[in-house]
Formats: sequence, structure tokens, C-alpha cells
Amino acid sequence: MRKKVLIVYAHQEPKSFNGSLLKIAVEELSKQGCSVTMSDLYAMQFEPRATRNDIVGHLHNSEAFNYGVETWEAYKRGGLSKDLVEEQKKVQEADLLIFQFPLFWFNMPAILKGWMDRVLVQGFAYDLSKVYDGGLLQVCFWNCFIKVKTRSFSLTYLFPKTHSPLSNCMASILASELPLHVRSGKEEVTLSPRNPCCPGLPEYLLNRSGALL
Amino acid sequence: MRKKVLIVYAHQEPKSFNGSLLKIAVEELSKQGCSVTMSDLYAMQFEPRATRNDIVGHLHNSEAFNYGVETWEAYKRGGLSKDLVEEQKKVQEADLLIFQFPLFWFNMPAILKGWMDRVLVQGFAYDLSKVYDGGLLQVCFWNCFIKVKTRSFSLTYLFPKTHSPLSNCMASILASELPLHVRSGKEEVTLSPRNPCCPGLPEYLLNRSGALL
Repeated sequence: MRKKVLIVYAHQEPKSFNGSLLKIAVEELSKQGCSVTMSDLYAMQFEPRATRNDIVGHLHNSEAFNYGVETWEAYKRGGLSKDLVEEQKKVQEADLLIFQFPLFWFNMPAILKGWMDRVLVQGFAYDLSKVYDGGLLQVCFWNCFIKVKTRSFSLTYLFPKTHSPLSNCMASILASELPLHVRSGKEEVTLSPRNPCCPGLPEYLLNRSGALL
Repeated sequence: MRKKVLIVYAHQEPKSFNGSLLKIAVEELSKQGCSVTMSDLYAMQFEPRATRNDIVGHLHNSEAFNYGVETWEAYKRGGLSKDLVEEQKKVQEADLLIFQFPLFWFNMPAILKGWMDRVLVQGFAYDLSKVYDGGLLQVCFWNCFIKVKTRSFSLTYLFPKTHSPLSNCMASILASELPLHVRSGKEEVTLSPRNPCCPGLPEYLLNRSGALL
């Protein structure tokens, strides 16, 4: 069965260094027989703000809005907004997750942080009230991520091993790369002026993804 | 002269714990003779996405969009979008900056990360090409922050001392608080069900802000 890869991509410009890495990733993974799905956040005009709009219908407590509680309750009754349900479906179907983004202030851009805030809600990605061996965290952990063999790695930034959104609701971060010194002779690799060279990236990716899938 | 305080606030619900901290901060700082300005990001529907819309008029390089370069160039020629110019003006006028926000995935919510990404652009907040003693970083540092005695602290979260947006473009982070165990008998302090108690927060804030201003 073909492995499914979801790439969550957060750059505005296809001709950028990030855009090049994305292109190569799609080509290389397709060549390896994977089916690649994409969430191109800027192109989708993905909404990063966590608001009441994420809940369809009534609120659990309309007196005082609590985003965490409301999205958890909405998840349980199937009442999350359409864009969130679609992203969660992509995550659930994926065997491998790739986050491709530039560093903004030593971390992911707001549009991707918004994806984390809104898509990885309690119930779907974790559950604080039941944890570890006997808990929903494990169940969810397995249902959403391990069971479907989802793994996470980043081509451009190292998620800290602790205190990152993903380290706490996924099995493991397989690899986390900051490919600043990658070089390539491939002409089809278009890079931004600030990143004038790119390494044997297909080989680089092949080496990495070989170990990942 | 009255000290000016800018509070950048990122919570959807006035009746939340964050809302209560905000209310007390405004009351206490006003009592101390400060003039308080607010950026209530959810109420403003602040845009967190870093896009071409942030640049008014022509691009420096329309062939390949580079957000960092474009906002830097736009800043120099006064071509940033109105919402960014307004926020930068508030920052420049402030003697003290307070960021009030809940933790989403061990960090600030996307709407506040978007404020950092979009408001603290190169030229205004820092300059990578000229650094340290002889550089624009210092100049900007002084112009934007030190000279106007802007300081940053957070009531609810500790910005890491390194690798936070602010640690690198401001003089210092004066205080960073995670007031989970604060208690109060004040009836006017409305707290969320998940935070049933609140401490001598006015005194707490008074003690802190006394050292800050």
C-alpha cells in the first residue's frame, strides 16, 4: 500500500528556498511511490485566529468563552468548523507529516502556529484529563498518530524535543533539519537570493526519508 | 510626565483569567498615574498572516516575494500597511510594554505571534546587516525601545531569555510571570472556572510595576 505523506507548507513564494525544498520533497517522495497531500497554508488563506467561529452551532458555555473547552466539546459532537475537520482528516490519513516553513522569530510563522492551535485540539490530538498508560492521550496518540504511523519531521527547523506542539501529542519527532549548508548542482532547484546554493537535496531527502518511511 | 503603558492583549473572553489580569493591570496602572493604551488583538481582529498585503504600493522585488526584505524596504520608505504603522507607533510611544496572553502549545497564541512577526520588522525593531556596537541594531534598539524606556514583561508567560522575539530587539525583559497560584479576596476579580482563585493581584502587580516603571 502506498504511503501517504501530508506536507503542511507555510511560505508565500514558490521561488523561495522553502518552495524549492517543497518541490524537491514532492518530487522525491512521489518517485518513491508515496502519495503526497499538501496544506499550502498561505495559498489556502488558512485562518490562524482561534475564535468562536471554529465551533458550529451552540456553545458548551456561552457565558464565558473558553477556546480549549469549546473546541474539545465541539470535537466530541462533530461540531468543529469545516476547515478544521478537513485538516484533521488529512492528519489522520497520513503516514508521515512534514512541516515546511521558514523561521520567523526563532519559531514557526503565525499562520502555522495557528494550524497547530486550531487543528490539534483536545480530544483529537491529546486529552489532559486522562493521560499516560490508562488515558485518552495514549488512545488518541495511537488513534491519530501511532496507529497510522504518522511521524513528524521538519525540513527547515528543529522542533525542540520538549515543549513543542508535536512532541507532546505524537509518537516521536523523527528528524528535524535546518538545511542551511545544503548544496546542489541541480539546475531545477530555484533558490532565493539569500540562499544561493543548495546541496544534493534529493539525495539528502532520500537518505532521510528512507529512514522515515 | 505620565508614563505610557501599552498592553498587547490576546484573549477572546473578558471574563477569563487573562481578562481579569488585564482589568486589574489597567486599574492598578491607572491608579499609579500611568496612561494605558491597549491592543486587544481578538477585538481588533488583528491579522496574523504575513503577506504581500502588508506592503503598500510596489514591491522591491516582484519576481520573488521575500517578506523580510519587502517589509524592511517598505518600512524605510514609509510603505507598511496602516495597521502595522499604528502598532509600531504605539510601541514607540510606550514606556512599558505588557503582553497578556494564555499559553497555546507552550507559547503565545497565533494571533500574538502574528503581531510579533508583522509589527517587529527589520529596520523598526532590528537590523541583521548592522549589528552590535556600531550597528543599526543598537540604534534601533535605542530608538525604538531603550530611548523611550520601553521594557517588556509578561504577566502570564515567561519569554525565554534567549530566542524569543523580544529578547533580541529590546533592552531586557524586566519580568516574566506565570501567575498560576495568585489568590485574591477581591470580589471584582472574575475568574474562569478553571482558575477559581486569584491572589492579591493588585498588590502583586503593584510590587512588580513599582520596580518596572
